[in-house]
Amino acid sequence: MFGFGRITALAAFVLLSAPLAVQADDLPSWNDGAAKQGIVDFVSAVTTAGGSDYVAPAERVAVFDNDGTLWSEQPMYVQLAFVLDRIKTLAPQHPEWKDTEPFKSVLAGDVAGIAASGEKGLVDLVGATHAGMSSEEFTKITSDWISTAKHPKTGKPYTEMVYQPMLELITYLKANGFEVFIVSGGGIEFMRPWTERVYGIPPQNVVGSSIKSKYEVQDGKPVITRLPEVDFVDDGPGKPVGIYTHIGRRPIAAFGNSDGDFQMLEWTTSRAGRSFGLIVHHDDGEREYAYDRQSHFGRLDKGLDEAGKRGWQIVSMKSDWKQVYPE
Amino acid sequence: MFGFGRITALAAFVLLSAPLAVQADDLPSWNDGAAKQGIVDFVSAVTTAGGSDYVAPAERVAVFDNDGTLWSEQPMYVQLAFVLDRIKTLAPQHPEWKDTEPFKSVLAGDVAGIAASGEKGLVDLVGATHAGMSSEEFTKITSDWISTAKHPKTGKPYTEMVYQPMLELITYLKANGFEVFIVSGGGIEFMRPWTERVYGIPPQNVVGSSIKSKYEVQDGKPVITRLPEVDFVDDGPGKPVGIYTHIGRRPIAAFGNSDGDFQMLEWTTSRAGRSFGLIVHHDDGEREYAYDRQSHFGRLDKGLDEAGKRGWQIVSMKSDWKQVYPE
Repeated sequence: MFGFGRITALAAFVLLSAPLAVQADDLPSWNDGAAKQGIVDFVSAVTTAGGSDYVAPAERVAVFDNDGTLWSEQPMYVQLAFVLDRIKTLAPQHPEWKDTEPFKSVLAGDVAGIAASGEKGLVDLVGATHAGMSSEEFTKITSDWISTAKHPKTGKPYTEMVYQPMLELITYLKANGFEVFIVSGGGIEFMRPWTERVYGIPPQNVVGSSIKSKYEVQDGKPVITRLPEVDFVDDGPGKPVGIYTHIGRRPIAAFGNSDGDFQMLEWTTSRAGRSFGLIVHHDDGEREYAYDRQSHFGRLDKGLDEAGKRGWQIVSMKSDWKQVYPE
Repeated sequence: MFGFGRITALAAFVLLSAPLAVQADDLPSWNDGAAKQGIVDFVSAVTTAGGSDYVAPAERVAVFDNDGTLWSEQPMYVQLAFVLDRIKTLAPQHPEWKDTEPFKSVLAGDVAGIAASGEKGLVDLVGATHAGMSSEEFTKITSDWISTAKHPKTGKPYTEMVYQPMLELITYLKANGFEVFIVSGGGIEFMRPWTERVYGIPPQNVVGSSIKSKYEVQDGKPVITRLPEVDFVDDGPGKPVGIYTHIGRRPIAAFGNSDGDFQMLEWTTSRAGRSFGLIVHHDDGEREYAYDRQSHFGRLDKGLDEAGKRGWQIVSMKSDWKQVYPE
């Protein structure tokens, strides 16, 4: 939270005697209302020693979806934009792609054609762009791309298309003794190179979908090679499994935005003690995008129907957030 | 490291002005010698700001094997003792086991017969003892077992058969800004219920072998069910892969004791910057066990041959350790 050298008796006094209302200022981009109050009430309840809802720091695990929860997923998932760019970059080395789906549709900018290639097409695209190189080469490829690629609507780097209120929420939870994880349907190694810099979440706290890899010594040099084979899909019912495998603890708070997060919220909020579930609802067509039940990316349907009876907090981006992106 | 309330100007002065020799006292169960000096020199080098070998805290990842590195693996892996006990407990519900291998050999205490059943036999045993229950049931089964089972030679609980010098080493690394992980060939969910209590390493920092699992809602209750199918074997060349998947960072220090740790040490110590590799050599037949090249469990052969040229530190339990187990 703060450097050792900055602790003085006076500062300690101020910190320890600060009333609860000041803590709510840790969320300055949130408008006052049920969503902000729900977050603050929950954190207060689980951190109040001696209270009936108290949770020891070691058990304060919070999980966040990434696409549509921490950053924008429209007009398409950022990782899909990476795949399309990468196919175009590699195309000169693959003349056969001009006549082979799904590459042909990608190169023609034919989104319907890509969609028509289905799951097999997606696996082929992932294989061509995410596999066949070493772990270090892939980290360099994604790092280079994310530092130069721009969002098609705003022209801003994707890493600036993150939600300021959610950044504040991550910081607020960490300041209250939570350990924060990303649990995303996105590729684990696509996220890890930049999550620490952008969200303050280190690689080991990122859970995601993955392909297989193998360790080998090539010409005396040890390498981890990425293989064109799906290992794990961290989406829907895969999210509680990813949490079990990577974290080994049931979260007490879960944050998502789509039906792909449904089971993660369900698993989290059905624990015995107090818990918290929150869904970011994209209802702000002016400052971001407005979509839910009919969207290709980040469809939210069942979650909208069931949030009420399950006690999950729905966040309206339009009315609950003062600001969407960092200044 | 210390509670907030205990920081005073005087204490801060004492802490900040402590000479290096005092830091070496963090390893009181280690005799003075090359092994202890190697550890202290490495930690000093990577934590000295402005030094040529300085490593930022976020990159200070240390990985420890478990069996034979942090606790005893003789006369058999502790997890194998669990499997054998569990088969005996479940046998009354499975009368067919009396005539079916590998169960027949287990019930007869015929170790050669178990070994003869090979890899298929092992998978059958794991399936019968580790799968077919919920994640929470398995946690309870292993927690109950580990709190009552005793080591056949010493009669002590297995969790007291941990190595005091290695506990000090974990604490010493954490105090110097390292994040410490277990990377074990053992089952990830067999270890997680007790590693925090025994080693101070929380579940999310435990990497191990795993079986598959699935999430489902049974009679309105969400459960994670453990399936009788191997998911990942975290041994040998699997260890760098497990590190890649779970941690997403290349370690700068690795600690093992057998050839199953060879690739983990190789991967760690072939990084560009300074690194450290250490092998615990079981040469103390009096206080523990003496075994290496010929052992069924924890065989150390290639590691002994190559440690010298690779710059890995060999620790003699007999001469480098003042004390083996906690008092």
